[in-house]
Amino acid sequence: MNNMKGIEMEFLFGVDIGGTNIKLGIVKNEGDIVVDGEIPTESGDGPAAAASRVKGWLDENRPEGMVLRTAGVGCAGFLDSSSGFLHFSPNLPGWTDVPLTRIFSEALSVPVVIENDANCAAFGEFKLGAGRDMECFACVTLGTGVGCGIITDGRVFHGCTGLAGEVGHMIVLADGPPCSCGSRGCLEALIGAGAIVQRARKLLADGRSSIIDTGDKMTVEDISNAAGQGDRMAIDVFEETGHYLGIGLVNIVRAFDPNLIAIGGGVARAGEVLFEPAERSFREHITEGGCAVAVIRRAELGNKAAFLGAALLSSGIG
Amino acid sequence: MNNMKGIEMEFLFGVDIGGTNIKLGIVKNEGDIVVDGEIPTESGDGPAAAASRVKGWLDENRPEGMVLRTAGVGCAGFLDSSSGFLHFSPNLPGWTDVPLTRIFSEALSVPVVIENDANCAAFGEFKLGAGRDMECFACVTLGTGVGCGIITDGRVFHGCTGLAGEVGHMIVLADGPPCSCGSRGCLEALIGAGAIVQRARKLLADGRSSIIDTGDKMTVEDISNAAGQGDRMAIDVFEETGHYLGIGLVNIVRAFDPNLIAIGGGVARAGEVLFEPAERSFREHITEGGCAVAVIRRAELGNKAAFLGAALLSSGIG
Repeated sequence: MNNMKGIEMEFLFGVDIGGTNIKLGIVKNEGDIVVDGEIPTESGDGPAAAASRVKGWLDENRPEGMVLRTAGVGCAGFLDSSSGFLHFSPNLPGWTDVPLTRIFSEALSVPVVIENDANCAAFGEFKLGAGRDMECFACVTLGTGVGCGIITDGRVFHGCTGLAGEVGHMIVLADGPPCSCGSRGCLEALIGAGAIVQRARKLLADGRSSIIDTGDKMTVEDISNAAGQGDRMAIDVFEETGHYLGIGLVNIVRAFDPNLIAIGGGVARAGEVLFEPAERSFREHITEGGCAVAVIRRAELGNKAAFLGAALLSSGIG
Repeated sequence: MNNMKGIEMEFLFGVDIGGTNIKLGIVKNEGDIVVDGEIPTESGDGPAAAASRVKGWLDENRPEGMVLRTAGVGCAGFLDSSSGFLHFSPNLPGWTDVPLTRIFSEALSVPVVIENDANCAAFGEFKLGAGRDMECFACVTLGTGVGCGIITDGRVFHGCTGLAGEVGHMIVLADGPPCSCGSRGCLEALIGAGAIVQRARKLLADGRSSIIDTGDKMTVEDISNAAGQGDRMAIDVFEETGHYLGIGLVNIVRAFDPNLIAIGGGVARAGEVLFEPAERSFREHITEGGCAVAVIRRAELGNKAAFLGAALLSSGIG
């Protein structure tokens, strides 16, 4: 395209809307980041205001001679990429039945593809990271929410309304703890960031000693740092979390039989203290049907996976 | 093909190997059953003996002028249709790492496609039964085992080694009762025929009164018959079973987001006493992400679904 206009260059633009921040970046050559950044979501102002701030960032950071033909927008929540609607997002209160594709394509004046953020991250890892060349690839994102994207035959597996791969809301402990989705015993209710912090609080309330300050603002990072210093209580928190993560991985294998499962997201930064018990639990539960071949590996693109995936998904829609 | 030989007719042949019986049938016109039957599996004699008995049945029942170019074989267990190996089957003791495709293609002297029996049933229901024209279709088979096949874009969803859709071995109750696969808390360990009978035995042992004879040979059918006569204990057994079945259906929706889930298999003959609590549990657990559209319906082809599906899957491999 545009062979006649040598000075114009085509770029991709990817946006990753989370509950707190929007990560975004301009990409060229199908994967090289030209510039990326982060702006606050301020979800209370609504999606149109967020789209307008994204446009502002793009205008400020637009490289010389940039031609933008399409953009990709990843967003946390239950959304339908074919209709372009975000149905509901636990982390974006009030963003219910939002025509996200229309809002962003109007703000950016280009066709926009929207996709669940976990699917975007999976597509990014598939194209540029841990899942390269995999026939069937699952990418789990551990954070406040527990997301998962499935890539088969080079495409995001959507199901009939774009809600497939919602591994965080698979039930792994029937009648278990309540989940943000309104159900009980979902994987997210057991290994989401909130569940991990609650697990630590419960052990502390039970009288376990720990170097962690029992202040209100305990985070997974605090627990992870304590575990790194050998804090037994913190290690036990990740042991139990890993137990359930391993079970979640079994369910991914039972459902999709992927070659590889990559694990990313903020909570995954806890590292071996989480991965070792998760892998142990996985091996213990997969058993004979364990001709299952899936390899488990860390994701590679960090928090850039989703905007990169969104950008790459938009390539070719224009 | 064979336009020159008017007297020859092309047929499809489908085989469905279960733990106790082999169901099999000859099919024409992409779905009309010419003749079908059932022979004992006698799995202790091994797969080659079973293949030879299947050949015997075929020879006896072969219609005049039949031309057989291919055959389809469905089999319970973890198998890989691309390599043609049955890895392991809880219901076929000793059938471990069996080259099933080779054994049957040698016995029948035609190319053979093998496929998990639940996938066959799903394909049968997709072509001829409850799942017709569905973009994304799940078919659950309730029996001794709990099987599931997923059809997307008109094809069986296999994953990378043919083990996708093993919903019976998804874990829905972490650290729950032991399963035949060696794991714990699998859906099959909670709603397989054995689990249902155990549930009834436990209630009886707890002193619940029932019209059911507490003899050794209690079956799901006995419990179902008792429930049909208003037996409260039997109704409670299906209530609890339906609770877990509903959770299993939630997990199918979270994984695959199908338009429709059909439920078949011997245990499904229990009917409303099972389906009503299952549907209630499903609705209760699917919640807000319940923009999920999946409809739940009975399968239509009864115990002919798997051999029909196997036959239809073999169409075109020759």
